[in-house]
Amino acid sequence: MSQDAITPREKDFSQWYLDIVTKAELADYSPVRGCMVIRPNGYAIWERLQRTLDGMIKASGHRNAYFPLFIPESFIRKEAEHVEGFAPECAVVTHGGGKQLEEPLMVRPTSETIMYHMYAKWIQSYRDLPLLINQWANVVRWEMRTRLFLRTTEFLWQEGHTAHATAEEAEEETCQILEMYRRFAEEEMAVPVFMGRKSENEKFAGALHTYSIEAMMQDGKALQAGTSHNLGQNFARAFEVKYQDENQAWQYCWQTSWGVSTRLIGALIMAHSDDRGLVLPPRMAPTQLVIVPIWSSDEQKSAVLSYVDALRGQLEGQVDYHIDDRDQLRPGWKYAEWELRGIPLRLEVGPRDLEKRGAVLVRRDTREKQTIAAEQLAKAVAASLTTLQRDLFARARDFRDAHTRSIDTYEEFRRYMREASGFAWAHWCGRPECETRVAQETKATIRTVPFRPSDRLTTPDAPGPEEGHCLACAATSSQRVLWGKSY
Amino acid sequence: MSQDAITPREKDFSQWYLDIVTKAELADYSPVRGCMVIRPNGYAIWERLQRTLDGMIKASGHRNAYFPLFIPESFIRKEAEHVEGFAPECAVVTHGGGKQLEEPLMVRPTSETIMYHMYAKWIQSYRDLPLLINQWANVVRWEMRTRLFLRTTEFLWQEGHTAHATAEEAEEETCQILEMYRRFAEEEMAVPVFMGRKSENEKFAGALHTYSIEAMMQDGKALQAGTSHNLGQNFARAFEVKYQDENQAWQYCWQTSWGVSTRLIGALIMAHSDDRGLVLPPRMAPTQLVIVPIWSSDEQKSAVLSYVDALRGQLEGQVDYHIDDRDQLRPGWKYAEWELRGIPLRLEVGPRDLEKRGAVLVRRDTREKQTIAAEQLAKAVAASLTTLQRDLFARARDFRDAHTRSIDTYEEFRRYMREASGFAWAHWCGRPECETRVAQETKATIRTVPFRPSDRLTTPDAPGPEEGHCLACAATSSQRVLWGKSY
Repeated sequence: MSQDAITPREKDFSQWYLDIVTKAELADYSPVRGCMVIRPNGYAIWERLQRTLDGMIKASGHRNAYFPLFIPESFIRKEAEHVEGFAPECAVVTHGGGKQLEEPLMVRPTSETIMYHMYAKWIQSYRDLPLLINQWANVVRWEMRTRLFLRTTEFLWQEGHTAHATAEEAEEETCQILEMYRRFAEEEMAVPVFMGRKSENEKFAGALHTYSIEAMMQDGKALQAGTSHNLGQNFARAFEVKYQDENQAWQYCWQTSWGVSTRLIGALIMAHSDDRGLVLPPRMAPTQLVIVPIWSSDEQKSAVLSYVDALRGQLEGQVDYHIDDRDQLRPGWKYAEWELRGIPLRLEVGPRDLEKRGAVLVRRDTREKQTIAAEQLAKAVAASLTTLQRDLFARARDFRDAHTRSIDTYEEFRRYMREASGFAWAHWCGRPECETRVAQETKATIRTVPFRPSDRLTTPDAPGPEEGHCLACAATSSQRVLWGKSY
Repeated sequence: MSQDAITPREKDFSQWYLDIVTKAELADYSPVRGCMVIRPNGYAIWERLQRTLDGMIKASGHRNAYFPLFIPESFIRKEAEHVEGFAPECAVVTHGGGKQLEEPLMVRPTSETIMYHMYAKWIQSYRDLPLLINQWANVVRWEMRTRLFLRTTEFLWQEGHTAHATAEEAEEETCQILEMYRRFAEEEMAVPVFMGRKSENEKFAGALHTYSIEAMMQDGKALQAGTSHNLGQNFARAFEVKYQDENQAWQYCWQTSWGVSTRLIGALIMAHSDDRGLVLPPRMAPTQLVIVPIWSSDEQKSAVLSYVDALRGQLEGQVDYHIDDRDQLRPGWKYAEWELRGIPLRLEVGPRDLEKRGAVLVRRDTREKQTIAAEQLAKAVAASLTTLQRDLFARARDFRDAHTRSIDTYEEFRRYMREASGFAWAHWCGRPECETRVAQETKATIRTVPFRPSDRLTTPDAPGPEEGHCLACAATSSQRVLWGKSY
């Protein structure tokens, strides 16, 4: 753990981010181009995130499974848009067991093709539907510019893949998962998100529609935090995923796929952290409370430690805590270390606290101190964790709202994207050419097209349907869409 | 789920095994040579196993992390024995992002080399030791003959990798992990194991010593169920993993690595199952109890289901149960299905049980039926699960003991390995040539060399030190070793 100063956000946001990732020992560069090492401090966050999300995925009826890492090259080529999107990004295995392979194998960039080949075998009848499967796995996409957690050649993710009897059910699943991701981002990660549909330019290669949740980072940029795809029958036709309906007629299935990845750890860091280091919402923190006993003599040490030992009883099973009783380190040094690592609460316990049967509870985010009585410890900790979780969400939402505005002219839009940084609600005619032109000229893309009143979901805080003119071509438009520069 | 008959064990053990794996939908063949698909029923067992073992690994002070899937070819070549053992088994990535790579990448067959490259960077001082890291990951070894779960080109495993300041500490870690694996196999999987050291022929490529746990399957063959390697300073020297001691002198670290894999699912199946399907020990069963309500009219159905609904309250949070209230399937068909899937206990609840405020509890292994009173349900289920777990272990140990004998002459040994099938305790002089000769002539290899009184661990049920003559060369020997044919 290095306590060299972290580059301030204001000075260099990218460097600030990398300083936190490396100094808090969340991840490290590996000797393999574009691949990262997730260190124990970072992996513990992933495990926390994974456990919570896995519970939500299972509670909605999905079961986990595991499919091969390798995909025959011919599989990737079966769906026309899919191969175009993914083939150029693949890592290719050409040799195995000392011999050249007859058919090269792709390291999975995503598992639609290999999974649906199996689905075609498993699904025979309408009674086999819906098939609701999720996989936790590593995937590889050959990236040119990488950044720890946010964009790496190999990353960890979950990918859900379902098959349904009707278009209606597939759309319902796609939306239900998007709503699950929203809840996860907002309630667990304390990261507010806009949700909606992706434009044609930004949708998944092979999907009918892609929906996403979009978060704002502290530099005003957007981070796509999860996607849910309605695949229609595109893959079902390519892989012959069919079922016999109640009248013995063969029908193609309707499918969905959806995923979130280790990039969410990057989102957590960039949404909440400050110039002293990582800030984690309590529900995503592997350790929620660190207890720092303070002493200046051996006698004091033993008295304080046995007092701490009595206090900890209240916390057992209630909160994940750690006691930092290391010798030879000053309390101030320890405070800085645990702040860097993002532990939400700190309890300082010294000889004077022992005398008064109390302790001092300090919040990581605000550094607010609260003197509490010993017997109130468990209650005070629980209350602080709840408040802190809620406050982080509110602060992130206020930040996002302060950096989101409605813009009506292209001139203002260009100035905003050049000089300020944030989201803009602006009109778009719906044509890909217009999005491409704006992206080329301003680096901003359409993050999401908000849901409309006729859709299954709503996009809270989005402007409703409204007449206007496309930013780029001035054609009439009936809806504002969300623009931003993105990670 | 197919209820076609399973090939009896006696008729064809291999086919019996594959029938259970495929008919209980635990795994399936994939279109990629040697790679399997772990289906939801099989993956749920892996998750159960993983959760328990992960808890044990963490409780002993290790932390999880994640390292890259790819390893530069030059890394594998740095440790002389390691490259010899693993290079021929590797899958090689030669192209990425549409271009040929300057240096080919190996898909990890095991992660010593990539991890220790990072350890060399992270470890500077004796204060950084011990470094105790574990990884859950997929690995790839190009296998010629594969079998679902037991030997597949890609498999899932955990690999622990530690670095220590002294040889003593590394040896202690190696043994402590082996003992943890023994406890896991015996107490959780109900599979008795012999533990000890591997011969030079069988040790890990690059290790000083390899220790293993060895289980017996129902065909009398051995299955290596976990290994723990003392790596000495072999890798530390190859990768410059060094620390400064308290006198500022640079020292090479002492290292260990250890792992268990999805092959344990194969061990579970082959140790306990029968001709009706899978038998799972309760502690490894994702679902421990299935409740089958029985009715023959709509009126009965609603009465029985509300009775079941009242009963389930007792089980909540105590046991993982499932209620099979599917229409249009006879109870007998359901029983067969849940027996095939290995659910440890079945509760049959019909109109007569409702009348008497009772139910019938049936054990999967013995099919023993027990009529219980409604208010005793939770207690009876808990007691049955405990007994069943203990009985499965006892039965497996009795089987192993009945198929293990001491043999003194090579003639008898050859006959035993040809006609019977099981373990043999026999003398060995310690020379690799003798082991190789016996292996070539009988297909039996040394499964383990039992611990000696001077070692840290003991091998229960193993014969103690004793004078004798090597099976193959008749030279004097001071110890019997365990021989067997293996998976």
